[in-house]
Amino acid sequence: MERVPILKIGDILLVSIQVDMSDQTAVALQEDLAERIVATGCHGVIIDITALDIVDSFVGRMLSTIASISRVLDAETVVVGMRPAVAITLVELGLSLNGIRTALNVERGMELIAIERADDDHDEPDDDPVPEPTASP
Amino acid sequence: MERVPILKIGDILLVSIQVDMSDQTAVALQEDLAERIVATGCHGVIIDITALDIVDSFVGRMLSTIASISRVLDAETVVVGMRPAVAITLVELGLSLNGIRTALNVERGMELIAIERADDDHDEPDDDPVPEPTASP
Repeated sequence: MERVPILKIGDILLVSIQVDMSDQTAVALQEDLAERIVATGCHGVIIDITALDIVDSFVGRMLSTIASISRVLDAETVVVGMRPAVAITLVELGLSLNGIRTALNVERGMELIAIERADDDHDEPDDDPVPEPTASP
Repeated sequence: MERVPILKIGDILLVSIQVDMSDQTAVALQEDLAERIVATGCHGVIIDITALDIVDSFVGRMLSTIASISRVLDAETVVVGMRPAVAITLVELGLSLNGIRTALNVERGMELIAIERADDDHDEPDDDPVPEPTASP
């Protein structure tokens, strides 16, 4: 059985889906990803689907499940790299990818996750903290 | 023909090889990568081979060619995610992956490229510049 590799980059786990997903591969990916989120304490999951020609209901459901699992484990999921044709087909099929955030590419996905985290947790110091302007009385 | 997706992350192009490489796929990847290096001006290429069960002479040669092409285009190539069994087989096959740098994972590969670039170009300002201590006369 093929396993989809999970790459850790900073606070983010990156998954690039390039193979046809079977039931087994999808379940293995969900399990691996859940384990890695817990093991690494990462707060973001980026799923790259650049290589996919089509996102059918099976893949759509898998993405939704991954997003739900990640959310329970305190991680945001962003799907990136969707081709224009895939987006068109998705809408035509009536699949709305509920609960899944999307971004154009990996970098924008990372930005999205960083913004989400910053909103969630104002106390956490940022990598590049901007000093708050002090209001003059 | 399957194409291996190339993901841009900051100054680095990330390629995760998950499919069996044919002649055509390998040539397409080399061309795509060369084009992306030129288009983005990236200075690093990370090739993740976590998903590969074996690196034979064909894949080894492909990695060497990619590294050579990237070098000509002023980009460092690092191969990451090699499994222990793959490393053992490589040595047993007498393949030494000449001219290819390796790192344990993507993050270490990124560090390696950052260090290489810093060595190559001392003038370039760093992301986190440390003020030079001024020598007291």
